[in-house]
Amino acid sequence: MSVAVYPEDHRATLARVLVVLDLIGVAVFAASGALAAVHARLDVFGVVVLATVTALGGGIIRDVLLGITPPTTLRQWPYLLTPLVVALIVFRFHPTVARLRRAVQLADALGLALFATTGTAVGLSVGAPAVTAALIGVITGIGGGVLRDVLLNEVPLVLRREIYALAAAAGAAVVVVGDRLGLPPGPVTLVGAALVAGLRVLALWRRWNAPLPRS
Amino acid sequence: MSVAVYPEDHRATLARVLVVLDLIGVAVFAASGALAAVHARLDVFGVVVLATVTALGGGIIRDVLLGITPPTTLRQWPYLLTPLVVALIVFRFHPTVARLRRAVQLADALGLALFATTGTAVGLSVGAPAVTAALIGVITGIGGGVLRDVLLNEVPLVLRREIYALAAAAGAAVVVVGDRLGLPPGPVTLVGAALVAGLRVLALWRRWNAPLPRS
Amino acid sequence: MSVAVYPEDHRATLARVLVVLDLIGVAVFAASGALAAVHARLDVFGVVVLATVTALGGGIIRDVLLGITPPTTLRQWPYLLTPLVVALIVFRFHPTVARLRRAVQLADALGLALFATTGTAVGLSVGAPAVTAALIGVITGIGGGVLRDVLLNEVPLVLRREIYALAAAAGAAVVVVGDRLGLPPGPVTLVGAALVAGLRVLALWRRWNAPLPRS
Repeated sequence: MSVAVYPEDHRATLARVLVVLDLIGVAVFAASGALAAVHARLDVFGVVVLATVTALGGGIIRDVLLGITPPTTLRQWPYLLTPLVVALIVFRFHPTVARLRRAVQLADALGLALFATTGTAVGLSVGAPAVTAALIGVITGIGGGVLRDVLLNEVPLVLRREIYALAAAAGAAVVVVGDRLGLPPGPVTLVGAALVAGLRVLALWRRWNAPLPRS
Repeated sequence: MSVAVYPEDHRATLARVLVVLDLIGVAVFAASGALAAVHARLDVFGVVVLATVTALGGGIIRDVLLGITPPTTLRQWPYLLTPLVVALIVFRFHPTVARLRRAVQLADALGLALFATTGTAVGLSVGAPAVTAALIGVITGIGGGVLRDVLLNEVPLVLRREIYALAAAAGAAVVVVGDRLGLPPGPVTLVGAALVAGLRVLALWRRWNAPLPRS
Repeated sequence: MSVAVYPEDHRATLARVLVVLDLIGVAVFAASGALAAVHARLDVFGVVVLATVTALGGGIIRDVLLGITPPTTLRQWPYLLTPLVVALIVFRFHPTVARLRRAVQLADALGLALFATTGTAVGLSVGAPAVTAALIGVITGIGGGVLRDVLLNEVPLVLRREIYALAAAAGAAVVVVGDRLGLPPGPVTLVGAALVAGLRVLALWRRWNAPLPRS
């Protein structure tokens, strides 16, 4: 009996952990969207819309790809209030314009880290194969930022010069391998997220450049 | 028995009303897409493609989010013929170039109004919770116009200076509240749509501006 | 008995043929994305990401519209390895810059041809009505290239001056008509694909222009 109870308890804990990490991801992606909107001189409504799209876009794409409809994000209040509150805070207390671009990239790095790893964990939790779950994790992580940049008419960060998709893939791989080894998913997700964020911040800070095509 | 018959009749009426309003929405969004394409000097094929994407995009996104696959829009002839006919009419009889931008925005306002409210009603009719239905309504209203602007490489109307998403949300709220109060959905949807279109036109006409971020 | 066996065998053959044509489509669309990325001077990671998005985008959109989740493309190794390998080959051995744009358009024409026709066949094989299947085929064919161009901040090929969506629709129509006439689907798909690619190449080569709006 206790054997049957354990995994259920385990699963409930995992679900709670995922929701918390997911909401933190929503908050930091909302911040990146709001900061980018301030940088583009949008008004307060534009800031709220861009923060919301950036924050919820990845999770909505994830759920549509997994066949979870309507997407979880559109069914729960915290997912809707978080971007609104974050957008208004950023609108009121954003950094000076000179620091906005750096702030966008830092918030984006954290959002990428959290969404790539929790997206992978959500995929595994609904029974997707390992590779599929990892890919959906990467898409979840990248999705919101791509929407943000495309709506602002910019080439997305994921196509620019520093390691981006590879960092997300590394984090997704950590979650998949941890799952295969039977390690506790909460800590594993955190380790994976730390790896993604660390790689991104290092790449930005050290200006790691990958080879360019010969011309 | 008559009790059982009434709501079914009611529902059939609602479905018919929604289809008619939805098709009017398709027609005006097709006009906005075609006018924008003429403004961008696309050829006749480009005008048809952009009209179709603008007209059908919101409804396709709505159905995918609600798990209705293949999307209704792709299953019924009127949804496909309407954008084609509208695009050809606009291509042949469009206003002078100076008036094109204004015409795009007027058609967009009507489409936003109809899609935001009918999208919410469709969401409610398939059993989505009130907030989810309202959000899906807003996404349905905004979706086609965003696709139109992104394909033309412009920052979408929804991020520009006048009230846009808020107008759509107001209309969605009218439909949700009307549904809760048990009011007849046809008239309620029309009232909601009139509110959205009225807000948008007023915002454009009076150049209502929301606060900008401090610099 | 043999009557019952025949269509099953037939269907298995069709499935195999579709997978092969689909993978060739993935490879040529990957090449078009990688070539466009080289043209835009992205680094090796950007080239891989853009090749993958271009190659898999259309099929993912197709599966989401048909309710096939998670999308087939995200569940099978060959679909993931192909864009990676193609991207690295293009990165290393791409043509001189002057020829890049022409190479993008040629690869795009082949991808459009294969995806529009196999997309239609997949739609028919899961029981979608003929018009729906044809439309989903056209969307499948156009989708990857639109994502490629939007991510690079360019107006998509489908909106530019030469026949594009019409070529895809012609190929989709061939597949639908062949299916109605009970013709063998493998050859029919190939004929449809040849028609699309032929129309596109002719349109590019002869600079077929459609009428512009009066100004």
